[in-house]
Amino acid sequence: MRIALDAMGGDFAPGPIVAGAVQAVKADSHLRIVLVGDHAQIERALAEHGGSHARLEIFHCSQVITMEDSPVVGLRKKPDSSIIRCWQLMAEKKVEAVVSAGNTGAVVAAGLRLRRFLKHVRRPGIAATMPTLHGPCVMLDVGANVHPKPSHLYQYGVMGTIFAKQIFKKEMPTIGLMNIGSEEQKGHDLAKETHALFNNSPLQEQFVGNIEGRDIHKGAADVVVCDGFVGNVVLKVCEGLFDFIMKVTAKEVLGSLTSEREHAERAIHRLAHQYDYSEFGGAPLLGIDGICIICHGASGDRAIKNALAVAARNAAAGINQLIVKELEAGPLADSGEDE
Amino acid sequence: MRIALDAMGGDFAPGPIVAGAVQAVKADSHLRIVLVGDHAQIERALAEHGGSHARLEIFHCSQVITMEDSPVVGLRKKPDSSIIRCWQLMAEKKVEAVVSAGNTGAVVAAGLRLRRFLKHVRRPGIAATMPTLHGPCVMLDVGANVHPKPSHLYQYGVMGTIFAKQIFKKEMPTIGLMNIGSEEQKGHDLAKETHALFNNSPLQEQFVGNIEGRDIHKGAADVVVCDGFVGNVVLKVCEGLFDFIMKVTAKEVLGSLTSEREHAERAIHRLAHQYDYSEFGGAPLLGIDGICIICHGASGDRAIKNALAVAARNAAAGINQLIVKELEAGPLADSGEDE
Repeated sequence: MRIALDAMGGDFAPGPIVAGAVQAVKADSHLRIVLVGDHAQIERALAEHGGSHARLEIFHCSQVITMEDSPVVGLRKKPDSSIIRCWQLMAEKKVEAVVSAGNTGAVVAAGLRLRRFLKHVRRPGIAATMPTLHGPCVMLDVGANVHPKPSHLYQYGVMGTIFAKQIFKKEMPTIGLMNIGSEEQKGHDLAKETHALFNNSPLQEQFVGNIEGRDIHKGAADVVVCDGFVGNVVLKVCEGLFDFIMKVTAKEVLGSLTSEREHAERAIHRLAHQYDYSEFGGAPLLGIDGICIICHGASGDRAIKNALAVAARNAAAGINQLIVKELEAGPLADSGEDE
Repeated sequence: MRIALDAMGGDFAPGPIVAGAVQAVKADSHLRIVLVGDHAQIERALAEHGGSHARLEIFHCSQVITMEDSPVVGLRKKPDSSIIRCWQLMAEKKVEAVVSAGNTGAVVAAGLRLRRFLKHVRRPGIAATMPTLHGPCVMLDVGANVHPKPSHLYQYGVMGTIFAKQIFKKEMPTIGLMNIGSEEQKGHDLAKETHALFNNSPLQEQFVGNIEGRDIHKGAADVVVCDGFVGNVVLKVCEGLFDFIMKVTAKEVLGSLTSEREHAERAIHRLAHQYDYSEFGGAPLLGIDGICIICHGASGDRAIKNALAVAARNAAAGINQLIVKELEAGPLADSGEDE
């Protein structure tokens, strides 16, 4: 398994990115990582974080698309950027996966430009894993597609169930449609049309209908389908609210304790670590030909190591082949990339 | 101040609704409440919760629009429902405000049918108060308008700033546009057009631009503007995630303690109470001629009491008159109800 890792992508790159790569190759003897970015900076980071490794190589490039760059302008003006070079390595079949904590819009846009969609896929989507009271669920799309059609959302349901089955090992994953009420006639036109599409499809039995925002963390569905605008906002609201609650909880709870304060402090620290949204190990862009894992901009070494492992796991499970096979048998199989 | 209270609306009605009314009239000697609903049930609840009161009267009606009813069908088939009767009392000027914890869609739809919009208002919106690290912020719309135009979102900014100024006592409230990135060109068409509208308006100086989901609880803006679909999902996601985190925190933190366990338990209980999303005291439907406060379906007596106080406060502050005055002077003043 060879993975191109965008060494320049992320708020603290290349330090923690390179550190995560060093940890990943040590943990998985089948992994080879191509660190894509500025040679000198990567060398320095490597020296700091454990030195070179036979399965770590550097692919030099001179440019970086920053978090502030517009994806469209960035891609046009920075042809030698790490994001573009990663995808080119994939297009040339020199790697099987791309992992980046860089500008999400640019990673997605470069992927859509340099790679084909998987056969029958109308639009790729980013699949984020969220914690619930009954284990993880996957929500998609969280930012690749802000103007989806009902057919796109239906396919997110197909791709999400394959992901949940392979990665979460759920035998028969349930699918919920994010909406503002549980009744069938609720919500905007997109929600109503998507609801009807699921109800008249082979996924009908797995479709639990509309779910509301408060149902996600209860574990009401294994797969939560929504448009990329809503999904992106929800994911980031969760991150912000989690942070907020940890802060007020630490203040209120620790303030109430004396002798056992340290115990509680450690417990809160464990929780903050366990549910840290920047550490969830990356969200796959599903539906594109190749594996792409998108990481939080604030990713640390642990998040990068996790994301590299997720890429390897997605490849091993053959997620992409299963998506094509499933869509082939479904109601929206066709040869075009969009309707 | 006379308020029509939908005694039949809410998951546990009429018990906690009536109890909240009893507490409210005791706390505020200027308040008169009309309890709208089934006479016998209200009488029973009154007997349970402190008995009758000179400033509490009952307006009998025979029907209830349930949480499961479609708003449109409910309004058509249940002309003698508590929701419709509340709005009729307002239309007949027998009350100045309506408070309901019933079917939100039906409350809004009945209001839009039985009352006019305030002059210059293109579309009313529901304004929910959220906690942040720097005091409360107001997010609107959270469910009245799932297909808004940029002009609607702009007006939500106007109405939200008036609310934040009067109710939160912020001198110069800031406005953020909910989006999926901070850059101007981010998001869907609605977001881009709304961004441009704010940037070329009298609110330009208060407009802090796009904010992301993770910024809300940091207190990045006093007023968060979004479409009703996104706002509704966000509000309910916060409710669900808060509940989730309180559960895992209680388990992890309390499990780590022995002698001081009770102290921590009380602190967590205080927190859960303080940020209980069902207790936030109701969200005003802004932009309609009259005062309407929409409560969480799970509202308890404290939430209803708070909502009645919010209604009184909105009336005292003259929010509606200020909205008309502000819109009159702004770029979208006109005589039509929509463009």
